[in-house]
Amino acid sequence: MKAARLYEYDPAMNVKLRIEDIPAPTITRPDEVIVKVGAAGLCRTDLHIIEGVWQGIMDPHGALLPYVMGHENAGWVEDVGSAVTSVKPGDAVICHPLRTCGICLNCHHGHDMHCEHSQFPGLGLNGGFAEYFLTNERSLIKLNTNIAPLDVAPMADAGITAYRAAKRAAKMLPPGSYCAVLGVGGLGHIALQVLREMSGCRTIAIDREPGARVLAKELGADHVLDGGPNLIEELKSITGGGAHVVIDFVGELGVENICWRLLRKGGEVIVVGYGGTIEVPTLDLVANEIKIGGSLVGDYTELVELMELNADGKVKMHYTQYKLDDINTAIDDFKNRRFTGRGVIVP
Amino acid sequence: MKAARLYEYDPAMNVKLRIEDIPAPTITRPDEVIVKVGAAGLCRTDLHIIEGVWQGIMDPHGALLPYVMGHENAGWVEDVGSAVTSVKPGDAVICHPLRTCGICLNCHHGHDMHCEHSQFPGLGLNGGFAEYFLTNERSLIKLNTNIAPLDVAPMADAGITAYRAAKRAAKMLPPGSYCAVLGVGGLGHIALQVLREMSGCRTIAIDREPGARVLAKELGADHVLDGGPNLIEELKSITGGGAHVVIDFVGELGVENICWRLLRKGGEVIVVGYGGTIEVPTLDLVANEIKIGGSLVGDYTELVELMELNADGKVKMHYTQYKLDDINTAIDDFKNRRFTGRGVIVP
Amino acid sequence: MKAARLYEYDPAMNVKLRIEDIPAPTITRPDEVIVKVGAAGLCRTDLHIIEGVWQGIMDPHGALLPYVMGHENAGWVEDVGSAVTSVKPGDAVICHPLRTCGICLNCHHGHDMHCEHSQFPGLGLNGGFAEYFLTNERSLIKLNTNIAPLDVAPMADAGITAYRAAKRAAKMLPPGSYCAVLGVGGLGHIALQVLREMSGCRTIAIDREPGARVLAKELGADHVLDGGPNLIEELKSITGGGAHVVIDFVGELGVENICWRLLRKGGEVIVVGYGGTIEVPTLDLVANEIKIGGSLVGDYTELVELMELNADGKVKMHYTQYKLDDINTAIDDFKNRRFTGRGVIVP
Amino acid sequence: MKAARLYEYDPAMNVKLRIEDIPAPTITRPDEVIVKVGAAGLCRTDLHIIEGVWQGIMDPHGALLPYVMGHENAGWVEDVGSAVTSVKPGDAVICHPLRTCGICLNCHHGHDMHCEHSQFPGLGLNGGFAEYFLTNERSLIKLNTNIAPLDVAPMADAGITAYRAAKRAAKMLPPGSYCAVLGVGGLGHIALQVLREMSGCRTIAIDREPGARVLAKELGADHVLDGGPNLIEELKSITGGGAHVVIDFVGELGVENICWRLLRKGGEVIVVGYGGTIEVPTLDLVANEIKIGGSLVGDYTELVELMELNADGKVKMHYTQYKLDDINTAIDDFKNRRFTGRGVIVP
Ligand SMILES: [Zn+2]
Ligand SMILES: [Zn+2]
Ligand SMILES: [Zn+2]
Ligand SMILES: [Zn+2]
Ligand SMILES: [Zn+2]
Ligand SMILES: [Zn+2]
Ligand SMILES: [Zn+2]
Ligand SMILES: [Zn+2]
Ligand SMILES: [Zn+2]
Ligand SMILES: [Zn+2]
Repeated sequence: MKAARLYEYDPAMNVKLRIEDIPAPTITRPDEVIVKVGAAGLCRTDLHIIEGVWQGIMDPHGALLPYVMGHENAGWVEDVGSAVTSVKPGDAVICHPLRTCGICLNCHHGHDMHCEHSQFPGLGLNGGFAEYFLTNERSLIKLNTNIAPLDVAPMADAGITAYRAAKRAAKMLPPGSYCAVLGVGGLGHIALQVLREMSGCRTIAIDREPGARVLAKELGADHVLDGGPNLIEELKSITGGGAHVVIDFVGELGVENICWRLLRKGGEVIVVGYGGTIEVPTLDLVANEIKIGGSLVGDYTELVELMELNADGKVKMHYTQYKLDDINTAIDDFKNRRFTGRGVIVP
Repeated sequence: MKAARLYEYDPAMNVKLRIEDIPAPTITRPDEVIVKVGAAGLCRTDLHIIEGVWQGIMDPHGALLPYVMGHENAGWVEDVGSAVTSVKPGDAVICHPLRTCGICLNCHHGHDMHCEHSQFPGLGLNGGFAEYFLTNERSLIKLNTNIAPLDVAPMADAGITAYRAAKRAAKMLPPGSYCAVLGVGGLGHIALQVLREMSGCRTIAIDREPGARVLAKELGADHVLDGGPNLIEELKSITGGGAHVVIDFVGELGVENICWRLLRKGGEVIVVGYGGTIEVPTLDLVANEIKIGGSLVGDYTELVELMELNADGKVKMHYTQYKLDDINTAIDDFKNRRFTGRGVIVP
Repeated sequence: MKAARLYEYDPAMNVKLRIEDIPAPTITRPDEVIVKVGAAGLCRTDLHIIEGVWQGIMDPHGALLPYVMGHENAGWVEDVGSAVTSVKPGDAVICHPLRTCGICLNCHHGHDMHCEHSQFPGLGLNGGFAEYFLTNERSLIKLNTNIAPLDVAPMADAGITAYRAAKRAAKMLPPGSYCAVLGVGGLGHIALQVLREMSGCRTIAIDREPGARVLAKELGADHVLDGGPNLIEELKSITGGGAHVVIDFVGELGVENICWRLLRKGGEVIVVGYGGTIEVPTLDLVANEIKIGGSLVGDYTELVELMELNADGKVKMHYTQYKLDDINTAIDDFKNRRFTGRGVIVP
Repeated sequence: MKAARLYEYDPAMNVKLRIEDIPAPTITRPDEVIVKVGAAGLCRTDLHIIEGVWQGIMDPHGALLPYVMGHENAGWVEDVGSAVTSVKPGDAVICHPLRTCGICLNCHHGHDMHCEHSQFPGLGLNGGFAEYFLTNERSLIKLNTNIAPLDVAPMADAGITAYRAAKRAAKMLPPGSYCAVLGVGGLGHIALQVLREMSGCRTIAIDREPGARVLAKELGADHVLDGGPNLIEELKSITGGGAHVVIDFVGELGVENICWRLLRKGGEVIVVGYGGTIEVPTLDLVANEIKIGGSLVGDYTELVELMELNADGKVKMHYTQYKLDDINTAIDDFKNRRFTGRGVIVP
């Protein structure tokens, strides 16, 4: 099958994936499923992988390369192991990014990201920038009628990460309250839609890029700011004292120490982006009774919920499509932020 | 001032309110406020008062009549007691229906309806079917700019009762779930809007009246049913096994024993309407793990939240306007369901 | 192996289980596990099975008998299927009563009792009143060091059913509040201990049997009542207006219509026992804003939590031990309430 | 009346309060109450006041001194304003530290600490290191029968601050989970008791002082550590990977950057002590999905709940008693940590 493979890590990112013909994956365990890839989202994590950021975690012995990236996958079931009963060849599916065990206590709780025996196709093993891709039955969700893999693939990671943060925010946001969203990219534009649909709050979208601000406005943000030097004052003026919740999709470049200064008393920052270091006096935490907490990729059940919102036409992925042969162009456009929303690779 | 007063209870409702000139209320305590009535909602409770249903509770000694009904009031502050600081004459306000003490433990919890020393203008003392009306500072909410008392008066009771139930429902309704709303009158049509704005669920509106069903459709109900003899089958077919939440705004006429049969496993009925008696085998409760619970008038803070949704244009009261002189016509139209939404009296 | 089998249903319960030698179960699927039974709890459900109450559900084609009852099992792993990795022969384990699929949406949520493909050993297939018993890996919890199967077996169903109800209650019970527990048998005596450990509330235990009341007192109940004709008045006097939560482990014999009358405003009944029919006016539900809801067997994760409480010495099962050969005596003693707590069968 | 007054701020704390005879407070508003002080807790905040830490906030114009500190007060009602109905002279009471307005939105929510018009006797106006003290009706809670003001005074601030944090922790702590408590002083020793009563978790108490560790053990801590250089390793070993919740009563001296390193994945730090600055990489927050949040003084309703626990004998204040004449000795002993628990001043 055709696949794009990474051959070396390079912090400067002066490497290209090679488009090659390699053997398709085969089933070796009764719970496995092979998916014919319909589309695979391109993720900032893929850039970090190329840079070598994840090398220590996913490739500690240096034995992984060459391998196939791609962890935001949707497509059609091609083949199933002997114990699989919930899907059959031809079914259109989206894949939760983790292959979980279903046995450990975290799996019993539904905390997929903390499964003690999980695998992450596209990180430590081959993923979806290829024609076929191997996962297990527990990771699959059948698509609703009339939903195409191409339209939803990045929901598998970018979508549920944004959904998990926005759903947590929505629970703290009664009508009349304010939610600030820092960064309106592949995740932020999903969060804005989820907040619009699941909360009576007012949203304030903040991004340095004019194109992202236009998109935020189209998606119903109540206020759109450019994140300039007066951001804190502007936001406190709009909100009458600060936001009730801030979702920080940036987490670096100084944003990590602006985010919590945007809160009102009793407010909470949900941190999704990473890279920087937060420095916060305990006096500010206590006197204002504010909270700062991280949010990871969403659970399987959260992907199910997001797909329902999508099937109802309430939340859509904004994307730009690239052929698998053009994946290096897609990566270059992503680095330079030449598209809004998400880039999607189609084999 | 001009006022409409009730002179006798009559289960057959063959009585008319008398439009009279009576002395306007005056301030006798430092926390009191006189409101010039802008509009007062007409409520099913008013019909029950005339029928004598509330006589034992609000008029145990038979000393109340003649008196002024009207407990869903909005208008402008006319005069304030010596200790009042948060409002001043001329301010446009809506009035939470209860005058609460602010001292008892329930008040400290914000559970206004359970205040141990509350008064209920329009029930046990004079209300708002008049030019002026007496309440206290704790019951008042200033209206947002550009909001007219006429457009919101019934929010003070019908609105927050629906809001409280719908907000409780929304917390149990993830995307893809179903909420059935039984009865699309003055309360139900608000609940549909609140669910649309605060939850990613799908709504099923049920009403015998064609006009109510048209209104439900306009307000965004995903499904609209006429509540015929096949209701349970129809709803189970739409929902794939039953609703996750049912809000019963009827609570009588047999609906009270249909409502819980509409649930799926793990579901919950929120009962707002009353009159009938629910008969449910404990085996059904346990085997299906369902819940049935009542919901009362909303708290002050819930009225604040509802007014924010209204100010944002997200939830609107659908109403028909009557002059105070025509209040008996309004009552007659209400009894015969000649209008959808709510009837509102303007002095 | 030695096993006790049921040969016929009899509403009058004039039948005895036959102690026989039958083939031990064998593994046929990769996720299966054979457990050498250490002990098996005797449950009211077993009496209902003999009476034929469950016949329509668990034996619709009349092909089940003779079969082995027993769904509250603990013991030691004897053999494991090829895919099993989390337990090995010799491990001491307790068994969640359901064999769940791990694939359906309810399993992903951790709602074991609503698994779409579950099996219930001891109901529709052979259970634990025998030397060996067949289940699957997902149902097993390893026992903490020094915990013997005999001491915990009924935790597998009686325990977690009580735990689930008591944990739900505890969330609604701040310090100074009251929880009434109706029925202090195999379930109620566990609930009292859980409430003592996980809530700052005061408990009121109610039982007609003197022995059960003595046990309640030993377990720390703050008040113990005999459930006589003045129960409602007694309880309202103790609590100053009614209980905040009532857990009804009876659910029949008239208790089902006393339980909700014991509540104060805003209170909730958790129904665990069944058999009767609740009749409650919607006016009572609404005016008092009370809730009535069923509670089923607990989830796997709840059994894990209960076993931690047990390992910490905080919650203990009170039981009487019978040999498998004496199982018919145990059943007779249970019917006539000749022991407090639970009866346990040891092969 | 006799009172202890502060005459100057001094960062080195080389000042003494002067014991003087000054006029007793009088009632000037209808909702005011004069309390005859039974006892007043000595708080770390009092030390900070003397040092001048609060000068900018509570004494911006330099017009406050000399004044009476003391914000943790209990005693007996001496006199009441004309509108007061819930207490009468002679009633034993404890005083929530804030005089709140009861009118603003935060008061309606029960968020006392965020009242927009609050006063804080003992900080910006005279407090309870005196024979009499002025507050308002909304701040008072009647003591349960047989409870003496002396035994509970520090509950008014130290107690509810610890209770608020521990109650929030308890909601996140199922059986088998671990809660680390950093600092077993006036607050920490209350938190340990609250956790023991309201949660099925295991507690790990950490303090550098041997006396505090002895007290922790007496109060039922499951593990007691001395907070030495191997704290993180010791705690991770005990807990199998980290605590589910950490309550940091220190918040300075380096503890603020140890606290969050004690967490397991999904865990939360509740910060109560302050002074230091937390430095946490966003990557740690996100990858481990941990939260860090401040907790302030508890609400009125939390003080009610804590007094119920105290009345039930479940939570007791450990204290050392000083006469008002000896207040400077008490301050000196407190600075040098010569007592465990709390110091209490008796007029
Ligand atoms: Zn991704
Ligand atoms: Zn797992
Ligand atoms: Zn919406
Ligand atoms: Zn009304
Ligand atoms: Zn009150
Ligand atoms: Zn059982
Ligand atoms: Zn399942
Ligand atoms: Zn203090
Ligand atoms: Zn206030
Ligand atoms: Zn306890």
